[in-house]
Amino acid sequence: MSENPVLHSHLVRLSYGDTDPAGILYYAAWFPKMEALQSEFLFFQGLRQDRLKEDFGWWTVSRATSCEYLAAAGLFDQIRIELRRGSVGTSSFAFDFTMRRVSDDVLVARAVSTLVTVSPEQSTVRIPELLHDHLANWGSSEWAAAHAITGADALA
Amino acid sequence: MSENPVLHSHLVRLSYGDTDPAGILYYAAWFPKMEALQSEFLFFQGLRQDRLKEDFGWWTVSRATSCEYLAAAGLFDQIRIELRRGSVGTSSFAFDFTMRRVSDDVLVARAVSTLVTVSPEQSTVRIPELLHDHLANWGSSEWAAAHAITGADALA
Amino acid sequence: MSENPVLHSHLVRLSYGDTDPAGILYYAAWFPKMEALQSEFLFFQGLRQDRLKEDFGWWTVSRATSCEYLAAAGLFDQIRIELRRGSVGTSSFAFDFTMRRVSDDVLVARAVSTLVTVSPEQSTVRIPELLHDHLANWGSSEWAAAHAITGADALA
Amino acid sequence: MSENPVLHSHLVRLSYGDTDPAGILYYAAWFPKMEALQSEFLFFQGLRQDRLKEDFGWWTVSRATSCEYLAAAGLFDQIRIELRRGSVGTSSFAFDFTMRRVSDDVLVARAVSTLVTVSPEQSTVRIPELLHDHLANWGSSEWAAAHAITGADALA
Repeated sequence: MSENPVLHSHLVRLSYGDTDPAGILYYAAWFPKMEALQSEFLFFQGLRQDRLKEDFGWWTVSRATSCEYLAAAGLFDQIRIELRRGSVGTSSFAFDFTMRRVSDDVLVARAVSTLVTVSPEQSTVRIPELLHDHLANWGSSEWAAAHAITGADALA
Repeated sequence: MSENPVLHSHLVRLSYGDTDPAGILYYAAWFPKMEALQSEFLFFQGLRQDRLKEDFGWWTVSRATSCEYLAAAGLFDQIRIELRRGSVGTSSFAFDFTMRRVSDDVLVARAVSTLVTVSPEQSTVRIPELLHDHLANWGSSEWAAAHAITGADALA
Repeated sequence: MSENPVLHSHLVRLSYGDTDPAGILYYAAWFPKMEALQSEFLFFQGLRQDRLKEDFGWWTVSRATSCEYLAAAGLFDQIRIELRRGSVGTSSFAFDFTMRRVSDDVLVARAVSTLVTVSPEQSTVRIPELLHDHLANWGSSEWAAAHAITGADALA
Repeated sequence: MSENPVLHSHLVRLSYGDTDPAGILYYAAWFPKMEALQSEFLFFQGLRQDRLKEDFGWWTVSRATSCEYLAAAGLFDQIRIELRRGSVGTSSFAFDFTMRRVSDDVLVARAVSTLVTVSPEQSTVRIPELLHDHLANWGSSEWAAAHAITGADALA
């Protein structure tokens, strides 16, 4: 996982629907929460997923997702999900996620979402310059210090 | 609930992700299953939701949903979800759903999904003739006897 | 819908996963959000769903849910979901929900969740005194003024 | 991915709720479908997740999940999800999944779900003998030929 600065975060409370008959987090529950954090971050950066194609002539699709479950998380636990820039390739880049329980600061899960840049017809393309500049900025601690938006701020 | 004939049905087995810490069905779990049944039925009828606007000049949006939970359904129960035509108005119509446990034929839930016909810009419009004809047919037992498609058939 | 005071609320931003190929809210997306609000409210009131049975000798199960979709809600809309006490019967009670878009204060949806009080074996029982007292308090504007917890506060 | 024999499979049709505003599969949609296949397989093998602890004195928790998206899958595509035994370690084992579109036999996604065997208190334990024997059998083509259960059979 990257040591890059935090770009965006949400606080979530695990609810009945997130937990399974064993009373612990349903393994698939993180993915929509990761997506909500990533989508909101990109939206704040002027990169609405639903308009990339028409606005810029390229868009992104998911290439891979992975998640490790490190500690049991249970009903009503409050979790901070943090988003960082992950590795950057020629035509793909990643966001890294950490899920940390607020009450004891335990890392309960970490995950990676890898995206690939594509043409409107979904052929892989090199990362466009606009996005490349964003990725360079997102990796800098200066950017993060100046721009990071917390979940609470986002909702204020 | 209508006594109309069954138009389409799916067999589903309640899974870990459908059940909650009490080991019974999570109340929101029926809605995606209802949607999958309704969408597949309309698809088989030549009414793809994603193309109604361009193909016919109108489309449908959800107006209301309701569900009653009549008996506890639990992990690994096998349930038959059946779709019937519900009430039909001037610019809206409904599908009725029943969820029945296979092992003991108990009705565990019933639900209604009400749709309204709209213009491309989402103004309410009278039910178009094409759809009106479909609705008349779907309410007839002759149609159902001739066309009803089971989940198993659909997948064959 | 009740004119009762707001008991609890969450601010949510509609995300990619909440919206459908038409770019509008997927009709089933409200239900997990309603559940998260209701569960957190009851948790704050000392009524953890997963412990009601052992702590008090009774628990609650869902009896019915209904939702009306009043205006189109789209990707990235910010919505305030509010919870109010709904109607109270002998062995059942309801929570009323309103979903209002922050940007223009439009009511995009409203919903009702009806619960029934049951014995550990899931036989219907009269609303127990402890819960009855809660319900009386939750209906009073004095209580709400003193205790209402916003989503932001809840996460602070 | 393993070349092991198929142990279980489901046929699913991608529905409105599985697809996003781009009209392609929402990346998180595979996980509940993988879980439903895996849970049903284990159920058929006498290994109900909700009873492992009381029946056998051990249970399993998710350790990791990963998914690769290889081709665009869209609304109403019919997909066959297949489950195979993956790698087996000292206290963990994996199931491998492939998602293949029926119409053109294209592999649209593949995924791995890694489970770890734990004590009732969730300490990692060596794979118990009962499970070890299952895993050895599941890896053999003889077993698969004799026992493999298709989604259609399962529902018959």
